[in-house]
Amino acid sequence: MMATTLPYPLLQALVGDEEVGALFSNEAELSAMLRVESALAQAEAQAGLISDEAARRIAEVCGSFQADWPALAAGLAQDGVIVPAFVRQLRAAVGETHAKAVHLGATSQDIIDTALMLRFKRVIEIFGLRLDVLIHSLRGLKDRDGATFLMAHTRMQQALPFTAADKLETWLHPLERHRDALEALALRFLAIQLGGPVGTRAELKGHGDAVADVMAEILDLRSAPSWHSQRDRIGEFASLISLLSGTLGKIGQDIALMAQNEVGEVRLATGGGSSAMPHKSNPVLAEVLVTLARFNAGLLGTLHQALVHENERSGASWTLEWMVLPQMVVTAAAGLRNAQAVVRSMSFSASKAKN
Amino acid sequence: MMATTLPYPLLQALVGDEEVGALFSNEAELSAMLRVESALAQAEAQAGLISDEAARRIAEVCGSFQADWPALAAGLAQDGVIVPAFVRQLRAAVGETHAKAVHLGATSQDIIDTALMLRFKRVIEIFGLRLDVLIHSLRGLKDRDGATFLMAHTRMQQALPFTAADKLETWLHPLERHRDALEALALRFLAIQLGGPVGTRAELKGHGDAVADVMAEILDLRSAPSWHSQRDRIGEFASLISLLSGTLGKIGQDIALMAQNEVGEVRLATGGGSSAMPHKSNPVLAEVLVTLARFNAGLLGTLHQALVHENERSGASWTLEWMVLPQMVVTAAAGLRNAQAVVRSMSFSASKAKN
Amino acid sequence: MMATTLPYPLLQALVGDEEVGALFSNEAELSAMLRVESALAQAEAQAGLISDEAARRIAEVCGSFQADWPALAAGLAQDGVIVPAFVRQLRAAVGETHAKAVHLGATSQDIIDTALMLRFKRVIEIFGLRLDVLIHSLRGLKDRDGATFLMAHTRMQQALPFTAADKLETWLHPLERHRDALEALALRFLAIQLGGPVGTRAELKGHGDAVADVMAEILDLRSAPSWHSQRDRIGEFASLISLLSGTLGKIGQDIALMAQNEVGEVRLATGGGSSAMPHKSNPVLAEVLVTLARFNAGLLGTLHQALVHENERSGASWTLEWMVLPQMVVTAAAGLRNAQAVVRSMSFSASKAKN
Amino acid sequence: MMATTLPYPLLQALVGDEEVGALFSNEAELSAMLRVESALAQAEAQAGLISDEAARRIAEVCGSFQADWPALAAGLAQDGVIVPAFVRQLRAAVGETHAKAVHLGATSQDIIDTALMLRFKRVIEIFGLRLDVLIHSLRGLKDRDGATFLMAHTRMQQALPFTAADKLETWLHPLERHRDALEALALRFLAIQLGGPVGTRAELKGHGDAVADVMAEILDLRSAPSWHSQRDRIGEFASLISLLSGTLGKIGQDIALMAQNEVGEVRLATGGGSSAMPHKSNPVLAEVLVTLARFNAGLLGTLHQALVHENERSGASWTLEWMVLPQMVVTAAAGLRNAQAVVRSMSFSASKAKN
Repeated sequence: MMATTLPYPLLQALVGDEEVGALFSNEAELSAMLRVESALAQAEAQAGLISDEAARRIAEVCGSFQADWPALAAGLAQDGVIVPAFVRQLRAAVGETHAKAVHLGATSQDIIDTALMLRFKRVIEIFGLRLDVLIHSLRGLKDRDGATFLMAHTRMQQALPFTAADKLETWLHPLERHRDALEALALRFLAIQLGGPVGTRAELKGHGDAVADVMAEILDLRSAPSWHSQRDRIGEFASLISLLSGTLGKIGQDIALMAQNEVGEVRLATGGGSSAMPHKSNPVLAEVLVTLARFNAGLLGTLHQALVHENERSGASWTLEWMVLPQMVVTAAAGLRNAQAVVRSMSFSASKAKN
Repeated sequence: MMATTLPYPLLQALVGDEEVGALFSNEAELSAMLRVESALAQAEAQAGLISDEAARRIAEVCGSFQADWPALAAGLAQDGVIVPAFVRQLRAAVGETHAKAVHLGATSQDIIDTALMLRFKRVIEIFGLRLDVLIHSLRGLKDRDGATFLMAHTRMQQALPFTAADKLETWLHPLERHRDALEALALRFLAIQLGGPVGTRAELKGHGDAVADVMAEILDLRSAPSWHSQRDRIGEFASLISLLSGTLGKIGQDIALMAQNEVGEVRLATGGGSSAMPHKSNPVLAEVLVTLARFNAGLLGTLHQALVHENERSGASWTLEWMVLPQMVVTAAAGLRNAQAVVRSMSFSASKAKN
Repeated sequence: MMATTLPYPLLQALVGDEEVGALFSNEAELSAMLRVESALAQAEAQAGLISDEAARRIAEVCGSFQADWPALAAGLAQDGVIVPAFVRQLRAAVGETHAKAVHLGATSQDIIDTALMLRFKRVIEIFGLRLDVLIHSLRGLKDRDGATFLMAHTRMQQALPFTAADKLETWLHPLERHRDALEALALRFLAIQLGGPVGTRAELKGHGDAVADVMAEILDLRSAPSWHSQRDRIGEFASLISLLSGTLGKIGQDIALMAQNEVGEVRLATGGGSSAMPHKSNPVLAEVLVTLARFNAGLLGTLHQALVHENERSGASWTLEWMVLPQMVVTAAAGLRNAQAVVRSMSFSASKAKN
Repeated sequence: MMATTLPYPLLQALVGDEEVGALFSNEAELSAMLRVESALAQAEAQAGLISDEAARRIAEVCGSFQADWPALAAGLAQDGVIVPAFVRQLRAAVGETHAKAVHLGATSQDIIDTALMLRFKRVIEIFGLRLDVLIHSLRGLKDRDGATFLMAHTRMQQALPFTAADKLETWLHPLERHRDALEALALRFLAIQLGGPVGTRAELKGHGDAVADVMAEILDLRSAPSWHSQRDRIGEFASLISLLSGTLGKIGQDIALMAQNEVGEVRLATGGGSSAMPHKSNPVLAEVLVTLARFNAGLLGTLHQALVHENERSGASWTLEWMVLPQMVVTAAAGLRNAQAVVRSMSFSASKAKN
């Protein structure tokens, strides 16, 4: 029932990513929200805010909940956020006896932001693994072709000779920094959001911090004070995503330049074909790395506009995050996948330049 | 088989648009490409470059073509563009006798860019109609509530009283300018692209311009010299889309400010609900207009990065257009739809400010 | 007394422009504001709102006004706009008898926006002349080198041969479109702003439109209804500036690629030197064209954020325009100057590629 | 002799910063470059690459060097970077005997990037101090007004009551995170650049790392492998600058909304005046915080475009950094200064909303 604003869905074969994209499907979103509501109920039961029976019932229903999707979509269109309609459906499924115990003292943002963190946790794990593999492949390439003499180029002109190993070092160092930065960020970033309607946890009657700690433990996220109107962590995460895309874009640009027929310092085992020129072998994946770098650089600038998050909840800024952030993550994942494919298919050839 | 990079597909209920979004589905893309290949063949037959029989056969097959989608996706991932795989499938469907007559002298960009123009033509028609309706509704609102006294605000402070009619004029004028600009742009913008592999039409053996004229006539687009490496028209169109989104965002921001409980100069018949605060009525659609304005402003800056389109075809820049432009168009369509809904549901109330 | 936020002022030798930059100096700003206040007074005298004697006195003082700059800066820091302090100084210079006749019925935005239009008028004239010269030079290059065989490149790979004339056409067409667009825009864009405190001209007691018409005639700008909260014209102008910068960036990128030692299809008479490699001749101005294109593309996205101009005057959005727009104009002027210098110094050489 | 591209230099009184802006003056740039050349010479003398006498002579000349500014500007316009002309002048001043010992084995980027780091070190110190003062002032405001009842607002509507202390916590937490992030970044970020023409330090004949270590010690920066084509640290620093600006923008937006006449939960001792409405008191500095946040968010997206730094030195990307980064730093400094001024001048008033 819903149109996608995504350009050319087929294009996902090139700039999308099945594994990471799946984390942002409706189903993944719903399932993360159910985990959050269930953890909230368990934590509230431990704090004595709801009965153990209610918590059990909520956990049970969250485990088997079937959404009325059109109603959720209609609710989103009406309320600007899916949670009110979702909570209505969840309460109905839980039944009258325990309906009031569902979502007690929480607000939409607690559920959405925490559910987002659950997905980002997985994203960071996947990115870490892909970075490890890419770094490993680049080191392997260095072992194999590192001694090859290349011509270094500055300002688009031949400078002086150096080796493929020298070039590869300039690709490896930033990737290693991003790998470390991802780990360091995960510790700061992956925190639950629990604040209630205005971020004070007042509705949890003095048990707010205790509920947050238990929720965090159940969800394997960090406990933290309410941060719903403080979007700096989101902006920091997006910055790292763009840095990573940018480094991959630099690698792609270097490869496309070295793979020029006239330069011939890089050969790609598998190039793209042309509908008009059978002789061509295009460095498609290298070009796409440049595309994704420019795309995410631009989206980063747009995401940071959402830091001006007015008052205790900005519908305008929050929705902007929803439109930008998942795209950045999925295209960065595509960048990592494409970079791995290029690196695996490339070999260096000695520079033809007379030195 | 392909993941979507779009944040929260459900969100399309709020920021997507079924009518315009459908123009960017795989099916719409394919059908536009088939129209272009068919028109190309007809034009080439008229120029004597291929036989009438071949053109008839191609037109017939284009009318009933069934794509092998996974093969198209695989081709896109390999070639960076769907056309080579598409042409292989089309030639196979046409059969050996006339296979060579398919896509003769054309290149991927001729098909993709012209197919895009066919969709943009429809987009401009839809936007024109929606602007007419929105302008009509605002004039109706002015007739009904125009005499209401409001407090003008400058720099977020009360300035002096004026009327709802004065306020509405500041919304109507730019919308009327956009309406005129759309029409003027359509005349310049909606041109076919035909250049062949490097934009010279050399493969059409002196018949290039004649083929282009006939193609344009068949497709009801303007004939023009090859423009495949000149992306200024694309950038100009995107600029207008962002201007439109920006004007709607200004309207949304004004409404959200006037609808504040403390100000109360605008009432919204239908507001969004909260999962925690039943008393609330949120100006969701007005906020979303602000979101879409900021989203498209940012995307415009990214799209203009693609103006640096190196050489005779930039895979990097062209792919960037694909990722950005349809999103801008569909979210602008959502803006027009949401603006219409807000305007229909709003009424002005006299300012409570003592003057 | 004021620090500049501009990176490396020396860099202006490369990315600045003396002629256009001078239009945005404090002195040029003040002198334009004085012209506006003088024209306003003359128009108000014709409408009988102030005496002819007052208008004469104001015109005379505007012709010889000496600003107290530190007081203007202090006023700007206090009020967020220079006009209140400026009007205080102007009224003092005019003297008590006619002080009230100064700035009568006008507001800060009337003066600033109209003064900006006076400068933009000159900018458009200068850009038009520079585009004429650049187009003339490119046509001359085509006459001289047009027959040279080059290798067309698509997706960073050799495609098929074509000529320097074919390449130059792809540079000329968008520049010719920009030239026409500048002229068309000037007619719509160069309008005075006169609205008074909240844009209604109410303070001009029914003479507002008459005053506007005379003001426009005196200043040789178009008369128009108040547009102070409608920033679409500003956004449209910025879009054209970015399109122009983008086209020049594409030309620069092409030149830098063709001038690569390994390609050698372009020779530059004057290249940049290196502090470490005396043998190098760097395509500095071609690279800078790419820089300026990316800079203005990004600034365009930022400028369009200012379209969300809340209420009857947004201090936040208006100030953002001041920070972005003049930079775009001056760097676009630098682009035109650098493009002319590159084109004058370049020659094409036949492709070394075996065809 | 050089035009400034900066909009309205007077505007610096509002969006510039004398202390931080001075770090990016021509004089500060030159003096940092001289420190770098002097440290390089001393380090090379210790490594035995040049004589102690040469190092002494170079240090002495660097301490008293008088630049020929027009020649430096002409050199920059010619070479795209100031260093070649600068080294020519420096060698002439040092005299023939030791001229060759000047800039030995270094390249332009070593000097410019290291000189930039010397300024950024000071920037980070200044930002840390200003953040401490701002945090202190906000805590003081919390002590004084924290108990005041305010109305929390979500989605531009009244939500539920909370206190000024609750609101202030949402401003303090991100500022405290930025304070910590600045310190952590300084350790990673503030490293010298030494690589020679292509980043291999080959010209230093095996002494490269030793020279780098001594240079770093002399300049009180971190030693690091050459990073000249790895711009991720620059992008990371810019991200933090934008996060800081964004947090200040959120604070400014909150203040502007609370200071609305109709809301009246914040009073500002000193507001801006209007040229037409004497009764107004505009929240100018709060608005400017929003402006600066949007400005730096946009510039961040532009700066990240420069991560695609092709080959061993990209004139295009490097120049883009020069145009963007200092502006970000100086406007962020203005944000900190303006935020301090607003916080010092503001007081909270109990919400008039009936709860």
